[in-house]
Amino acid sequence: MSAPLGVAVLGTAFMGRAHSSAWRNVGAVFPDAPATAMRVLCGSDPARTAAAARSLGWQEAATDWREVIARDDVQVVDICTPGHLHAEMATAALEAGKHVLVEKPLATSLAEAERMAEAAARAPGASMLGFNYRRVPALALARELVRDGRIGQVRTVRAAYLQDWLVDPEAPMTWRLRAETAGNGALGDLGSHVVDQILAITGQRVTAARGTLRTFQHERQGPAGPEPVTVDDAAWAQLDLDGGAVASLEVSRVATGSKNALTIEVHGTDGAIAFDLERLNELRVTEGRDGWPARVLVTEPTHPYLDAWWPPGHVLGWDSTFIMQAADLLRGIEAGRAPTPSFADGLAVQRVLDAVERSDAADGARMPIGDR
Amino acid sequence: MSAPLGVAVLGTAFMGRAHSSAWRNVGAVFPDAPATAMRVLCGSDPARTAAAARSLGWQEAATDWREVIARDDVQVVDICTPGHLHAEMATAALEAGKHVLVEKPLATSLAEAERMAEAAARAPGASMLGFNYRRVPALALARELVRDGRIGQVRTVRAAYLQDWLVDPEAPMTWRLRAETAGNGALGDLGSHVVDQILAITGQRVTAARGTLRTFQHERQGPAGPEPVTVDDAAWAQLDLDGGAVASLEVSRVATGSKNALTIEVHGTDGAIAFDLERLNELRVTEGRDGWPARVLVTEPTHPYLDAWWPPGHVLGWDSTFIMQAADLLRGIEAGRAPTPSFADGLAVQRVLDAVERSDAADGARMPIGDR
Amino acid sequence: MSAPLGVAVLGTAFMGRAHSSAWRNVGAVFPDAPATAMRVLCGSDPARTAAAARSLGWQEAATDWREVIARDDVQVVDICTPGHLHAEMATAALEAGKHVLVEKPLATSLAEAERMAEAAARAPGASMLGFNYRRVPALALARELVRDGRIGQVRTVRAAYLQDWLVDPEAPMTWRLRAETAGNGALGDLGSHVVDQILAITGQRVTAARGTLRTFQHERQGPAGPEPVTVDDAAWAQLDLDGGAVASLEVSRVATGSKNALTIEVHGTDGAIAFDLERLNELRVTEGRDGWPARVLVTEPTHPYLDAWWPPGHVLGWDSTFIMQAADLLRGIEAGRAPTPSFADGLAVQRVLDAVERSDAADGARMPIGDR
Amino acid sequence: MSAPLGVAVLGTAFMGRAHSSAWRNVGAVFPDAPATAMRVLCGSDPARTAAAARSLGWQEAATDWREVIARDDVQVVDICTPGHLHAEMATAALEAGKHVLVEKPLATSLAEAERMAEAAARAPGASMLGFNYRRVPALALARELVRDGRIGQVRTVRAAYLQDWLVDPEAPMTWRLRAETAGNGALGDLGSHVVDQILAITGQRVTAARGTLRTFQHERQGPAGPEPVTVDDAAWAQLDLDGGAVASLEVSRVATGSKNALTIEVHGTDGAIAFDLERLNELRVTEGRDGWPARVLVTEPTHPYLDAWWPPGHVLGWDSTFIMQAADLLRGIEAGRAPTPSFADGLAVQRVLDAVERSDAADGARMPIGDR
Repeated sequence: MSAPLGVAVLGTAFMGRAHSSAWRNVGAVFPDAPATAMRVLCGSDPARTAAAARSLGWQEAATDWREVIARDDVQVVDICTPGHLHAEMATAALEAGKHVLVEKPLATSLAEAERMAEAAARAPGASMLGFNYRRVPALALARELVRDGRIGQVRTVRAAYLQDWLVDPEAPMTWRLRAETAGNGALGDLGSHVVDQILAITGQRVTAARGTLRTFQHERQGPAGPEPVTVDDAAWAQLDLDGGAVASLEVSRVATGSKNALTIEVHGTDGAIAFDLERLNELRVTEGRDGWPARVLVTEPTHPYLDAWWPPGHVLGWDSTFIMQAADLLRGIEAGRAPTPSFADGLAVQRVLDAVERSDAADGARMPIGDR
Repeated sequence: MSAPLGVAVLGTAFMGRAHSSAWRNVGAVFPDAPATAMRVLCGSDPARTAAAARSLGWQEAATDWREVIARDDVQVVDICTPGHLHAEMATAALEAGKHVLVEKPLATSLAEAERMAEAAARAPGASMLGFNYRRVPALALARELVRDGRIGQVRTVRAAYLQDWLVDPEAPMTWRLRAETAGNGALGDLGSHVVDQILAITGQRVTAARGTLRTFQHERQGPAGPEPVTVDDAAWAQLDLDGGAVASLEVSRVATGSKNALTIEVHGTDGAIAFDLERLNELRVTEGRDGWPARVLVTEPTHPYLDAWWPPGHVLGWDSTFIMQAADLLRGIEAGRAPTPSFADGLAVQRVLDAVERSDAADGARMPIGDR
Repeated sequence: MSAPLGVAVLGTAFMGRAHSSAWRNVGAVFPDAPATAMRVLCGSDPARTAAAARSLGWQEAATDWREVIARDDVQVVDICTPGHLHAEMATAALEAGKHVLVEKPLATSLAEAERMAEAAARAPGASMLGFNYRRVPALALARELVRDGRIGQVRTVRAAYLQDWLVDPEAPMTWRLRAETAGNGALGDLGSHVVDQILAITGQRVTAARGTLRTFQHERQGPAGPEPVTVDDAAWAQLDLDGGAVASLEVSRVATGSKNALTIEVHGTDGAIAFDLERLNELRVTEGRDGWPARVLVTEPTHPYLDAWWPPGHVLGWDSTFIMQAADLLRGIEAGRAPTPSFADGLAVQRVLDAVERSDAADGARMPIGDR
Repeated sequence: MSAPLGVAVLGTAFMGRAHSSAWRNVGAVFPDAPATAMRVLCGSDPARTAAAARSLGWQEAATDWREVIARDDVQVVDICTPGHLHAEMATAALEAGKHVLVEKPLATSLAEAERMAEAAARAPGASMLGFNYRRVPALALARELVRDGRIGQVRTVRAAYLQDWLVDPEAPMTWRLRAETAGNGALGDLGSHVVDQILAITGQRVTAARGTLRTFQHERQGPAGPEPVTVDDAAWAQLDLDGGAVASLEVSRVATGSKNALTIEVHGTDGAIAFDLERLNELRVTEGRDGWPARVLVTEPTHPYLDAWWPPGHVLGWDSTFIMQAADLLRGIEAGRAPTPSFADGLAVQRVLDAVERSDAADGARMPIGDR
């Protein structure tokens, strides 16, 4: 048995915690994947990082990310910091010869994303983008069904990602609501997941986009008084795909009563598929032109990833997606195959989001999207 | 008791049958509405019309619609013929002093619709457009809830109308698939219902539209060989409303597995509503910013129209909407109040659909919609 | 064409209204069934009956049921009076040579039911019991699927009929809550439908029953003060079927939040079926041991009864079941075939309910049920 | 900070793996609970246990359970072996002064269960039974709502636990299908969870039970040829509760199409609750006599356990219940409070199951259940 791969996570907030869970559990769930060791958790606050490292199962805590990626006992760098730090950290880690996992979004600008994809292409290490919903077994099954022609040729995709955390008018100003730190709002935060799923499920490329952004509440209370909200609360887009399909998407953070409702409906010439993230373990599958939507509980050993988990009927949680993501990265490293989604996949998503923003600025006009 | 209002239905096909059911039952369900007599059913084929008149409960059959609207014993003319005949028939009936119900769509061109709305405004008789889904009790309840502020101010409406009857590549050419007879495809047929619901539920006006049309199968077998399909199979649109809301809609006749899925989700500042026509008797209602979607079975005596029907829990069918529509027309006639939806309401819908088509022709650009 | 069959309905309340709707519409929906004429509606109150007859479409009103069944122009007597009157009226009508439809329950005692079944067997006319849910297309489809072996051999049936109208402690005393007028409570009112469905869907016979009755509120306010409630609010039973299946059922009028929830789940060796009356147009069908439950919208022309109705996706209401019931009676009369459910079928249900009551009195012990 | 509590798990199969996951993650999810150390995993096969220990995160592997419970560095013994070993192991561990968690069922006979409850009452250490579904947040919320009177007084509980793994006639003989090793079949395996939930949610005690067991397939292929199946495939029971409620339950391993369908409906005088384990993160709540069932996504920080997990809308999986179970045990140990469910709670469940079996043997007669 070879030595375990040393892992470092950069970032101790929500995503740092979720990724720590992945590294703590990947060996138990996927014992055949390369072994790992949880070397170091890196955060900005020394005391808080030390406490988090202890409870989350890390051997060490650190505060200087450059030192962390320079360590010889670290082979995998997992970046969970805010988006505007991704480009610098990921590029440095790749240049240091590490394998790199970057939490989504890849970057906060298209230019950064392009540089990161180039860096990834040049680097000896593996690189992967953390669109964790790729690992939802039901969505992996959806990809399989489409790829195997089980619903024929895809014609339309109707997708939405609705949340309600900004419905409250008293919800305070945060970095997520300022264009300079977040780039955009619901479009990037939620729309990136949606666009990635559209690309992954259809296996098609976006050739043009139309879109609209809307901010419903223009001012929120910041630490120093009222501040303008400079990102979108909701966005709509319609995408032309190179295989002839049309995809529509709607994202919102002001959708009252919707907590985490990523819904995707795919209609093909010979069937259909529907998914709702709030029911993560289910997929509605209609096979044949005269078929009826069947509720598949995606917990069978024949379903993607499921042979590693529990007997049929024992549902998985949201956090399990990070464990499967980690396993896929490790297997890619072991096999010398580039894991997906790659930085290039992330760049493709960014190009679509960028076209949506440009379309909005041009009153909805269709924006073609080239290969680069 | 005054003499019953004599009714004539023009058209013996699907809609003629549904409207006949309405006139046969309206007095039993709504005994307090003005009484009616089923005078005459008018169709093009003498034998078929006679047989239909007999089984559907009509006193007489006729084949000349001009004679029918000239009869003294006919006060209500109910027009269920194909759309391109609506303008001429409705205008003539209004000019003859009749009350007129026109099955949707109002007309097949914007110009015709404008002339019809003008004729209705001038005429002594009542006029009404047959958007029968206005009478679905769950949708009437939705209107009430929005009007009464129960979900706050509407911000977004997400609507779709998905059917699958054109998924079959062997489905033959019909007048519905030719631009010259049908005007457009899914946009007019299904989109008109959707736009009417958006207007009725929000109580807002559309100020601008963006849209796209798409035909997936460009040729179908006609009686004399292959013919080009010249209308859309599917359409997408996004509407700006004058109250600040944004509505998105998607319609399709190639949505595999969807039979009659008119779905409407309304998100307000203080609640949400969701509806699905395939579950016609249910409404999902979320009250309050922290509320949860409750499944309301809209069969209580306190719900719209329901005191006229059965005890709680006894669901209504699609055809009941026509009975309630007839009752509303009769009550409008009795009260001297213009029933809704009016021809002007139908014209407003046509203007939106027209703007969507113009937007599609302009590569998706935003098309403002004026008052006229 | 032969003369239409003259129809009389006895009873003007809820069921009289529902059956009148059936006779008003059966010719329009099923033009190939024998024609009928709505001769006379018979009720106890002259003025109210006259008004009802007028609005419901009857030619005449009457108050003496014996005169009605003696009329030469009446061939079909449809009995919608309270249960304790069924035996006398039905027997007299059968003896007068009429075709007889009796609203459920067949009778309020086993002895009466036996006499009625004997009278029906002797009589020249057709007789039928009004278990209208037999005509719900989804339940008719369930019968077909089981009969055709599509779910293998039935092993278990799990059924319930839950309502909530007695949850309110202030709901007043009625004849339905007195043993002397109603026989029993939820068991007979709701349980009879459930038992009939179990028999009809499985095609099996009940060989033994265990059961329990429970009254939760023992006193309610009557017209002259508090009265004891002498029937059950809820009941539970478990039935052995002669084909080896076991059926469980639960009925309640104090099931808060349930309006009309007749639910039936059937598990076979090779599939399963599930139904909920509150979603009358849907059937969940699982085919094969490894199948998944598909939601079938039972509105296709290939589904039972549906070729007579509307295009796919246009749902039916509760009241439509009475129209289909009338059509089946008429077709039975025309063909000289005994329509189902027969009085004998109703007697079989009564025997099961009787055994449940006896089991309850015997502390739950198993009660065998013979052929008679 | 005090030294961490040393933990040992006995058993390496399905449940050993699930409990190992709990100990691996409890400190990360609940950092405020007493710290633990994963000392030793104990199994029968040395090599397999060593491999499992390594991948599952244990410091050591062992094969002699008596040595394990004698270790000074082990304070918590978590027993995941087959049921017939529970009594001996748990009693020994309690006598050794350890805290003990026993996976359900408590024991395979009532006599054993009684001895274990007595041992637990005498022992200095904490003891807890692993009815993990007590920790499903939605079911914990159900308990809170009932306890707080939010649905009034409970009148009826309708529960089922349906699986399909024995539908396949070729499914082989196992120890679970032999009475001598498993005690009984679906009744104990599935019914124990159901009875525990009925007791926990209502807070009432069972005073009498009626029941039936049924075996549908009487022979299955064993390692040495066909063997008789000597346990039930399905069972039905009806329970009287001391607060006046009635509970019904149905369990089956031959319910085609049901994977892990533990469903519980609770009807109170002022509301209702419904749960389905296949949708573990949801609870249907009807508040008030006129309320409607609302779908609560039980992922809010105000919901039980949820402040320790992820933001709203991020669903938990089945395996998370073991983490919450471990945390509750640790908190009980820390506070010197007996954690629940206790062995006495498990004994109460066994008494009910025993009465159901005796009722079945007595042809369904009601069996009173005393306090002991």
